[in-house]
Amino acid sequence: MQLHLRNSRCLVLGAGGFLGKNLCLALAEVGAIVTGFDRGPCPDIFNNRVKWKSGDFTSLQDYADDVAEADFVFHLIATTVPGTSNSDILYDIDSNLKTTVQLLEHCRKYRGKKIIFASSGGAVYGVPTTVPTPETGSTCPISSYGIMKIAIERYLSLFEHLYSLEYRILRIANPFGPFQNGQSHQGAIASFMYRILAGKVIDIWGNGEVVRDYLYVNDVVDALISVCAYDGKHRIFNIGSGEGRSLNQLLKDLSRVTGKQPDVRYHEARKTDVPSIVLDCSLAARELLWHAKTPFETSLNLTKNWMQTQI
Amino acid sequence: MQLHLRNSRCLVLGAGGFLGKNLCLALAEVGAIVTGFDRGPCPDIFNNRVKWKSGDFTSLQDYADDVAEADFVFHLIATTVPGTSNSDILYDIDSNLKTTVQLLEHCRKYRGKKIIFASSGGAVYGVPTTVPTPETGSTCPISSYGIMKIAIERYLSLFEHLYSLEYRILRIANPFGPFQNGQSHQGAIASFMYRILAGKVIDIWGNGEVVRDYLYVNDVVDALISVCAYDGKHRIFNIGSGEGRSLNQLLKDLSRVTGKQPDVRYHEARKTDVPSIVLDCSLAARELLWHAKTPFETSLNLTKNWMQTQI
Repeated sequence: MQLHLRNSRCLVLGAGGFLGKNLCLALAEVGAIVTGFDRGPCPDIFNNRVKWKSGDFTSLQDYADDVAEADFVFHLIATTVPGTSNSDILYDIDSNLKTTVQLLEHCRKYRGKKIIFASSGGAVYGVPTTVPTPETGSTCPISSYGIMKIAIERYLSLFEHLYSLEYRILRIANPFGPFQNGQSHQGAIASFMYRILAGKVIDIWGNGEVVRDYLYVNDVVDALISVCAYDGKHRIFNIGSGEGRSLNQLLKDLSRVTGKQPDVRYHEARKTDVPSIVLDCSLAARELLWHAKTPFETSLNLTKNWMQTQI
Repeated sequence: MQLHLRNSRCLVLGAGGFLGKNLCLALAEVGAIVTGFDRGPCPDIFNNRVKWKSGDFTSLQDYADDVAEADFVFHLIATTVPGTSNSDILYDIDSNLKTTVQLLEHCRKYRGKKIIFASSGGAVYGVPTTVPTPETGSTCPISSYGIMKIAIERYLSLFEHLYSLEYRILRIANPFGPFQNGQSHQGAIASFMYRILAGKVIDIWGNGEVVRDYLYVNDVVDALISVCAYDGKHRIFNIGSGEGRSLNQLLKDLSRVTGKQPDVRYHEARKTDVPSIVLDCSLAARELLWHAKTPFETSLNLTKNWMQTQI
């Protein structure tokens, strides 16, 4: 267990989401003093282990005091997903980029805070020219979601340059696990698992040969906690399993784990889907001494156990 | 003279600015049908050679019909400059990024239009790792101005990917020449030339050893016109002289050309000034058969002749 965050004050923006819930629980576990911020009421699972602040990320006043008190600010909020972000780009800019700049302008008034930003390993590189893709790979996103992640990364770098605001960025691959909603397009594994268990049809856009880098959420949380203690020169880390799996392969894996046969319908491919992305995570291995530890089969079983409670 | 734009309908957004005025006159010269769009009234120099549309770029209705009629849309509008863009980033996002996305969303409704975007060779690379810097150089801007230029470049690429909207980008170095205002921080040569001729003190931030790539505006206009005919696979071109000059060297050059001794005051360096940037323009030479033709001494004399009419 990592103990460097014991008694550190951690603010988690987006604490009610999939990553946020897992992170808050893990932070509480390692002895951090955790404040969770999100829309809506405090999730039951936090059970007094997390101080809850309900509010709107577009309104600085809703969380300004919490930033003032925090040592670490985890920014996990995203209002869009790659597949839908292109349909209202102005909303994407307003709700993700402008709100984050507002957060940074507020953070820079204080000394000694560190911002940990959840960027996207799947969206920032676009169609990769090198596979597995390192952090230095060219970034040419094919979604507004990815363009906004890159712009936020650049503003973080700018604020360090201008105001010595500290930050770390994790470009996270495709996380899955408990608390990922199977009914809200959050990820293929959650969606497929839910639909198999609930006996519903699975829709796939394209021929199912799209390859992604899936990793268990506990490994992501482990990386988010590890990076807090990192004081080296790097700022951006790929966080993935380093292994590629196609959707068709996933269907076989899920069929094996659930013991059920999926009912699949294939549709025309979408232009926002990168054909293949697998992350080169050797920088995180070297600098953070981190790697994805949970075996894939174990991860799927843990996810299944949780998902069965949600049907 | 390049004749491929004869009778083409060209819309110039930002036609009242330094680049815009020069471009409109050159487009009219090569036989294009030119509409100029900007705030304020039609500049006298256009003298019926340019159809004028006055309006606000934030209001799509002010120029929507002009886009509908155009074959080429030159987007030269920037509401900020690198040195000031960091002081109000939300304004930078609203007035440069969101307005441009609005333009692109409108353009994609039509077939066969080409957008030519004036990006920045001085701001997008940040502190360059390779000098002279090629288009493939890493882009880590140290100003919001540069971050916005990169984000716009990415949205252009996205709109081609999603909607086949055609575009070309010129990353223009430091242009100078007639119509560049010496009193509005638009460029070192204009500002220094004006202040020398007007007998005013010149303020320099840092020790004057900051190096830039200066090129004459006619060469930029030549590139903007050349790229309209380009149908190869590249989208982004550096447009510079390929030669670096320090501010101190510029002062000597201007002193020689004007026959006057500049009165200089040195101040503390600014964090938004890249120490040195010189562009590698070999891609434009190979693909556009373009290079900066006007000798530096000639350019300075032409600029002086114009500036003298403004004192």
